[in-house]
Amino acid sequence: MDTLQCIHTRRSVRKFTEEPVSREHIMEILDAGRWAPSGLNNQPWRFVIVRSHESRKKLSELTKYGKVIENAPVSIAVLIDKASMYNETKDHQGIGACIQNMLLATHALGLGAVWLGEILNRADEALVVLGAGIEMNLMAVLALGHPASEKHSSQRKDLGDLIVREL
Amino acid sequence: MDTLQCIHTRRSVRKFTEEPVSREHIMEILDAGRWAPSGLNNQPWRFVIVRSHESRKKLSELTKYGKVIENAPVSIAVLIDKASMYNETKDHQGIGACIQNMLLATHALGLGAVWLGEILNRADEALVVLGAGIEMNLMAVLALGHPASEKHSSQRKDLGDLIVREL
Repeated sequence: MDTLQCIHTRRSVRKFTEEPVSREHIMEILDAGRWAPSGLNNQPWRFVIVRSHESRKKLSELTKYGKVIENAPVSIAVLIDKASMYNETKDHQGIGACIQNMLLATHALGLGAVWLGEILNRADEALVVLGAGIEMNLMAVLALGHPASEKHSSQRKDLGDLIVREL
Repeated sequence: MDTLQCIHTRRSVRKFTEEPVSREHIMEILDAGRWAPSGLNNQPWRFVIVRSHESRKKLSELTKYGKVIENAPVSIAVLIDKASMYNETKDHQGIGACIQNMLLATHALGLGAVWLGEILNRADEALVVLGAGIEMNLMAVLALGHPASEKHSSQRKDLGDLIVREL
């Protein structure tokens, strides 16, 4: 899929068919995340792949958007490795770039995904479910699969409202 | 350009020809940034387009990577609108997603760019140069133009080192 088209047509997908996502596709998505830029190229992102019914169920109980995780054939938990961090703002920006690469790759592969952040309210419990140690922090969970729902429309502000000034 | 190819072949470009970047291309790049996802769809990103020699010179004096800004035909300062923020971590991640969309769009259009973060050390002075008020914070500067330099190689960790666990 063309890059600009992918950027413009990607939407959050919250309903999925029962068709499993191939391991090859999961790896392609993570590989896209891996190629994001980061400050000092520190690559602070780490991933937990969640596919088992048991783990999805446990994770789903930690967010009010649990149904999405429970019904998605796979979720990718995005963690940050605290020891690799050098600047909180820039590291969190880098994580966002990594997530965006994964969302675009998902869409380019004909799959759908949603970026879930509300679960950060219970990050400590989620880290236990994910089997991650205290050297990690939870940054987001991406739920993904084959889209079952119609694409939702989404709105953005006009460019004119975003450009503060031209110098 | 194909999305996955774009993600994999994008590299930081720090040297540019003197060829100007068309306004149409600048708008396409900002438009890509505009379509990034954000928590609660709050779209906290704002932009200042810097093209005049005088402003590029002033901005370049605020970072040790000033030569890049001075020699790039255009820089885009990425700001965050404090009033639109709801969660610092998630808002900074959203800014990262917005920046990554712009970097990918730049590459897809045959242009090159580099994400500059070191200038955040002098963000207050930069905001004065940018004519932005205290309702904004500086998040990054993207310097961009037509690539003059050979592509640099870049390294990433192996996926095996990034996948903490599979559940």
